[in-house]
Amino acid sequence: MTTKIEVVSDIMESNEIAARRNREAFDAMGAYVINLMSGPGAGKTSLLEITLEELADRYRMAIIEGDITGTFDAERLSRFDVPVVQINTRGACHLDANMIHQAMAKLPDGKFDLIIVENVGNLVCPAEFVVGEDAKVMLLSTPEGDDKPKKYPLMFLESKLCLINKIDLLDAVSFDLEKAKRDIREINPNIDIIEISCRTRQGIDAWIEWLTEKLKK
Amino acid sequence: MTTKIEVVSDIMESNEIAARRNREAFDAMGAYVINLMSGPGAGKTSLLEITLEELADRYRMAIIEGDITGTFDAERLSRFDVPVVQINTRGACHLDANMIHQAMAKLPDGKFDLIIVENVGNLVCPAEFVVGEDAKVMLLSTPEGDDKPKKYPLMFLESKLCLINKIDLLDAVSFDLEKAKRDIREINPNIDIIEISCRTRQGIDAWIEWLTEKLKK
Repeated sequence: MTTKIEVVSDIMESNEIAARRNREAFDAMGAYVINLMSGPGAGKTSLLEITLEELADRYRMAIIEGDITGTFDAERLSRFDVPVVQINTRGACHLDANMIHQAMAKLPDGKFDLIIVENVGNLVCPAEFVVGEDAKVMLLSTPEGDDKPKKYPLMFLESKLCLINKIDLLDAVSFDLEKAKRDIREINPNIDIIEISCRTRQGIDAWIEWLTEKLKK
Repeated sequence: MTTKIEVVSDIMESNEIAARRNREAFDAMGAYVINLMSGPGAGKTSLLEITLEELADRYRMAIIEGDITGTFDAERLSRFDVPVVQINTRGACHLDANMIHQAMAKLPDGKFDLIIVENVGNLVCPAEFVVGEDAKVMLLSTPEGDDKPKKYPLMFLESKLCLINKIDLLDAVSFDLEKAKRDIREINPNIDIIEISCRTRQGIDAWIEWLTEKLKK
């Protein structure tokens, strides 16, 4: 008698299979899906608040919140009449397709125009895991420094759009905007870049326009 | 004939064994070792520059730099007459004890008073891996937001000292300092907290005093 030992040798391949299954389910819902990523404190939840203020009345939206622990971000979004599902990763530093699969089961039945997944605050690992999204969108905030694209290139390479947030702090934090944009485009020539401030609302119109263009397709 | 298959089931246990081996080697060098952690762009390298300016003439120091790719931070420190070893993690979002073991082999022979390991910019995973250090020290920067302790508790729990950096931006970024300190102490009642600004040098004397106290023991 021989015992056959199966080894899942490629964790990424396993994740991609789960992501394709999510993709089919998102398609059945009619949803455009954004995987929103950044380092901790770059402004993902503030951007979601503004986005819900602008679009929650016009589109059927849902939010999937990823955090290591707690429901702090989900609570910030609870004032909107939009389904929010909180994932606690229990220590894991990124969301994967299986976590999203479980979260999708908690969404109300029906059609959605736009689902935004807020990933764990981490400039590294979230970029390695597809979850079935249409587009990865990332935030880089000016206090993090203009050296971040070259130090953490994968997220910039994987994203369709980079929002440079906290642009109102540009002078206070000595962030070289031209250098940052040049480095980002060197990593990913096809990426869109929009400068925003969730505090002053600079650039928010451009973000909303970028997003609603995607929903028309 | 039977084939015995050994499985290293606990990656953390394996790391701890390697960390103990590092610890013995650090002891043989006479070195106090800091594992310096934070999210990306919180100011680890700026703090190292200031620390080297203050102490490189008085103590035998070495730096181990951890980055996913490149030598950007090591280059910033090259103006000091201090050995700097760069680790490229090739995608990994944290340093582990085996990486440090390999880096130690690149240090010049001899005694050191203080070795500072600059971890990958990530508020999550670095806290899970001991590398043989005497103390974990972390930075939280005010633009990241006062909600970070409760959202990323492990690093605050594991650290002996939390430096709250970019304190000069406190008002510009609406960071509630008292809330942050209360939350940090709720997670870890034994942690030291020092408010600093690498830009204005506020609090740097207190950091240097904290560090040199440790070197006397």
